[in-house]
Amino acid sequence: MSQYQIKFMPENRVIEVAHGTSLLSAAAKAGITVKSGCGGKGTCGACKVVVLSGDPIIEGTGNLTPEQLSKGIRLACKTLIQGDMTIEVPPESRLQEHQVLLGDVQKGLLQESEHDLLDKFGRHPLARKQRISLSKPTLTENSSDWSRLSIELRRVLQTGEKPIHIPLSVLKHLPELLRKANWDVSITMTDTEAGLTITHIEQGNDIPPYGVAIDIGTTTVVVYLVNLITGEIVDQQGTYNKQAKYGDDVITRIVYAVEREQNLIEIRDAVVETVNGLLDKILARQSLSSKDISSAVVAGNTTMTQLFLGVDPRYIRLEPYIPTMTTAPSYPARELGLHMLPEALVHSYPSVASYVGGDIVAGTLVTDLASGEDIILFIDIGTNGEIVLGNQDWLVACACSAGPSFEGGGITFGMRAMPGAIERIFVDPKTLDVSLKVINNQTPVGICGSGLVDCIAKLLSAGIIDRAGNFQLEHKSGSQRLRATADDKQFVLAWAHQAGGEKDVVITENDIKNVIRAKGAIYAGIRSLLNMVAVDIEMISRIIIAGGFGNYLNIHDSVQIGLLPDLEPERFEFVGNASVKGARLALLSQNAWREAEELGRKMTYVELSVGATYMDEYMAALFLPHTDMSLFPSFQ
Amino acid sequence: MSQYQIKFMPENRVIEVAHGTSLLSAAAKAGITVKSGCGGKGTCGACKVVVLSGDPIIEGTGNLTPEQLSKGIRLACKTLIQGDMTIEVPPESRLQEHQVLLGDVQKGLLQESEHDLLDKFGRHPLARKQRISLSKPTLTENSSDWSRLSIELRRVLQTGEKPIHIPLSVLKHLPELLRKANWDVSITMTDTEAGLTITHIEQGNDIPPYGVAIDIGTTTVVVYLVNLITGEIVDQQGTYNKQAKYGDDVITRIVYAVEREQNLIEIRDAVVETVNGLLDKILARQSLSSKDISSAVVAGNTTMTQLFLGVDPRYIRLEPYIPTMTTAPSYPARELGLHMLPEALVHSYPSVASYVGGDIVAGTLVTDLASGEDIILFIDIGTNGEIVLGNQDWLVACACSAGPSFEGGGITFGMRAMPGAIERIFVDPKTLDVSLKVINNQTPVGICGSGLVDCIAKLLSAGIIDRAGNFQLEHKSGSQRLRATADDKQFVLAWAHQAGGEKDVVITENDIKNVIRAKGAIYAGIRSLLNMVAVDIEMISRIIIAGGFGNYLNIHDSVQIGLLPDLEPERFEFVGNASVKGARLALLSQNAWREAEELGRKMTYVELSVGATYMDEYMAALFLPHTDMSLFPSFQ
Ligand code: FES
Ligand SMILES: [Mg+2]
Ligand SMILES: [Mg+2]
Repeated sequence: MSQYQIKFMPENRVIEVAHGTSLLSAAAKAGITVKSGCGGKGTCGACKVVVLSGDPIIEGTGNLTPEQLSKGIRLACKTLIQGDMTIEVPPESRLQEHQVLLGDVQKGLLQESEHDLLDKFGRHPLARKQRISLSKPTLTENSSDWSRLSIELRRVLQTGEKPIHIPLSVLKHLPELLRKANWDVSITMTDTEAGLTITHIEQGNDIPPYGVAIDIGTTTVVVYLVNLITGEIVDQQGTYNKQAKYGDDVITRIVYAVEREQNLIEIRDAVVETVNGLLDKILARQSLSSKDISSAVVAGNTTMTQLFLGVDPRYIRLEPYIPTMTTAPSYPARELGLHMLPEALVHSYPSVASYVGGDIVAGTLVTDLASGEDIILFIDIGTNGEIVLGNQDWLVACACSAGPSFEGGGITFGMRAMPGAIERIFVDPKTLDVSLKVINNQTPVGICGSGLVDCIAKLLSAGIIDRAGNFQLEHKSGSQRLRATADDKQFVLAWAHQAGGEKDVVITENDIKNVIRAKGAIYAGIRSLLNMVAVDIEMISRIIIAGGFGNYLNIHDSVQIGLLPDLEPERFEFVGNASVKGARLALLSQNAWREAEELGRKMTYVELSVGATYMDEYMAALFLPHTDMSLFPSFQ
Repeated sequence: MSQYQIKFMPENRVIEVAHGTSLLSAAAKAGITVKSGCGGKGTCGACKVVVLSGDPIIEGTGNLTPEQLSKGIRLACKTLIQGDMTIEVPPESRLQEHQVLLGDVQKGLLQESEHDLLDKFGRHPLARKQRISLSKPTLTENSSDWSRLSIELRRVLQTGEKPIHIPLSVLKHLPELLRKANWDVSITMTDTEAGLTITHIEQGNDIPPYGVAIDIGTTTVVVYLVNLITGEIVDQQGTYNKQAKYGDDVITRIVYAVEREQNLIEIRDAVVETVNGLLDKILARQSLSSKDISSAVVAGNTTMTQLFLGVDPRYIRLEPYIPTMTTAPSYPARELGLHMLPEALVHSYPSVASYVGGDIVAGTLVTDLASGEDIILFIDIGTNGEIVLGNQDWLVACACSAGPSFEGGGITFGMRAMPGAIERIFVDPKTLDVSLKVINNQTPVGICGSGLVDCIAKLLSAGIIDRAGNFQLEHKSGSQRLRATADDKQFVLAWAHQAGGEKDVVITENDIKNVIRAKGAIYAGIRSLLNMVAVDIEMISRIIIAGGFGNYLNIHDSVQIGLLPDLEPERFEFVGNASVKGARLALLSQNAWREAEELGRKMTYVELSVGATYMDEYMAALFLPHTDMSLFPSFQ
């Protein structure tokens, strides 16, 4: 097949690709990750590139304007190569590497309670290492190598009759190893339901065993390296999930994964590669070998977990929304392709249902939600909002589709919480003059989720929008910031010259409606759960918010727009990345792991699509803060 | 590298090989298996071929005579290709395919006792299959596929809290399968120490589960296909172990295996290929798929077991002779490369020591040796003679190196028990006229192990040899059959014209000394065990003989030459291939399998090289029948 040379700018990187390749794939091959929210279907418009030279096949132009087209802007996913080309990938179309939420918290609350939990459950890691010295065999003391070793191991560990399994790969090299090590060896093991599995035998040493806690989010992936003896988080690293190229949300990814058999493998490989990239970085930084990682616990939503294991995710998105498994067995790293000890077991967090996954069970565990009489509400706000309500006696959970607004998706100038993102806004109610707080104090380029919440609260306070989110163009200030365009109404947050670009940074009525739908979905989920168990808002003692977005959230704003229930600020708590913290806890405590499985079983999943309650609640929540103002006494 | 054309005759088959390839490898590539007892070291002389044209590099000629060399005869292993050639591979240098011992017995004794054992242990196969119908999930009955399945399976099988493991390969396709099968599925499982492992899930059907019993002998490999419901041996097949090309005995193979890392893989692949060849044949004949084989039990000596698993066998042959393991865990067929259900477990019979392996434990189990008060002696005669003595209270075992004589090795006209082999001989003591019984009544081409035993007994009776095995050239008959050559003395069993060849078929004094050493080794082993536990020969109630050679043995002859103890013929019994029978028993009965593990642990291995007893016994046994004639009253 013909090969063509494609040059990418400003990198000035040239690669060769075959006839018919899309610019999206070509960029990936050049190591440039172009955003693609719709998975390359030509609908999201995220993958804009500029064709500087060459004459490609145009399969589609989506919502590109004639003006954009005349400037050479094309959709990378729908532009196919049929000759040499030069392409520019503008910054806004690139998936930027930036520090993702690693679990640090603003209020520092969890750091303490987490330590309490480890004390509560007891430190007894899923994997351990034991140094053993054997006597040398003789003609009369001639039991086999494996008998000699296993008998001594049983004696030292006092394992009784528990089965001990030695994988073939370890057994194969046992004789040579024992003799080279002069019968002094370190044995790495994992405790499982079925017994003890030996995962590695090496020359005796005192390197501690390490484990990795892995949070596989739809958007980001975070890895903690944990010393299994001290419990310390030795290192941590996060990045974007490479599956993003197949779509922003789980549904788009499932659709892609089941299209062809090869796709499932491809999308699994993408997340495995993501995790391996993080592991490699950490290992290099800590001067450790992949063989030093003897255990992994993975927490992710149900789709992420199935895709990570390569398990057919098809029925997650088809009614009646059945996941393949809620408790996944543990598999050796070699079967999953992770850069760690090949025989080390990788444990996947149990989930509850197709849309309440292991990340939520991990959060429920790590926030100690189910251990007292107090009723606690746990919310993980992302593309999906997952909500758990309960105490030691009962637990209910649901999921509601909030859409990507809080992560910057579907918002004209939406972006993630990274340098350049507007996170706070102050509006003079008289003049509508604006001052902004931008992350890292940089020039504003867009607005992040917490900025949006703040912005809507301020627009409402200033009378720029009404309770339904409609712009009040006749605002008495007469400010030029408030204006109507051909297809929308908008408010200018930063003028082009302030934003250092060609365009004014604005928020549109459409953006506001999107956020209202998102916050309405979450509030309706909370109300549905409360109704279901006949609990009043006032009876909730604590509301714990997890997830990257929640971490930057202003509680007052959130209540004012009706995202969160109207309770005293003291009852709110941020937990940060509860998923990776729950994974760490399980790594370090077999009891915690058992409790996680118990929690998964105990939680009652409420399918919101059954019955009319949720829809009614949702409709009622499409106001700022709500149609029923009695629910928001502070703002009456 | 230069390639040359090598033509093999009489096949007229032409292949291309690289410069420097040995004729032995070239023949293998041409699909012609040339014998090579020494593993291609140029010492055994088994690989003779005739160079018809071409000018090879001669690396060695071993013990070829000038006459043979002048006829173009070369050692295939030490003849390297440096140009086109034409080669003839004579029949005597070919490893012939012939029916190998499949476990049939002459006296038909075991068929019955085996059934008794199955009744005794209870029929509860290592693998089973269960058909299950599930209710369809709904929005309210929305547990995961795997929960739905495992809960119903637990209910039907009443497994209680036993862990159930589902391999990743099965889990991956579970959702699609359940729906295609309309929730009616057949589940194949294996019971292990650690719980229940699911090995396959398929559309519901009533095909019974099958298992395979595999005897991996150093020389031959035998497979039984067993219906796990009825216990019936549905089919059976045997052939030579393809490892033969790396040497006839375990020591030569170990030496080869540890020479380079690649060799171990090569020699493992050879036996896996052998087993797969048998499986393929049986599956084709029975119109079954490899997926229908849901379990395997393998019995072999310790070296064969380690090589089959690819486990470093190095220390088996080095003092203090330590095997890597005596109980091997079970591994999935996919890890071993067997043509059966990929996740089906392959169980290896436990062994006792480096030279008392799983085949002997299998024999001990299947002969019910350890279940009564009677003292029983079990002997497996092959290249190694393995001996077990005991009853329900105690068991001792040893191994003695008998050498290959009984299998035709190291004997001038030695051959295996196959058509053309002399199996009985009658000598007129006056005239020394000979009449022969040849297998299949064909023209005699050589003499098999049982023929050798008979022959020596007859030569002794006729006064042709004395009790030390020396030829009595001055025999009063004056027969021309008795003669001396330049380097040996010999007796002609068949004249060249009778044998249809160029040479007289003879037995030499050297051959006789070899057999005496072999029988001496075994008898000394028996005596050493008896001494050890202070048991008199008379106290042995039964002597059970296993192995291919034993099956054709004449008891009277064997006692007369001092191979077997002098007891009434009624106390002897043949069991045939006890190894494969023991494998079948374990396949069908979990209790039998547990008993096998128990037997392995219970058996005390006696290392004959420790102390002087064995050497003394051996020296005393180098007479016909023995130096101490009081041990052989029937022949005094
Ligand atoms: S002499 Fe050639 S294989 Fe032994
Ligand atoms: Mg998350
Ligand atoms: Mg055998």
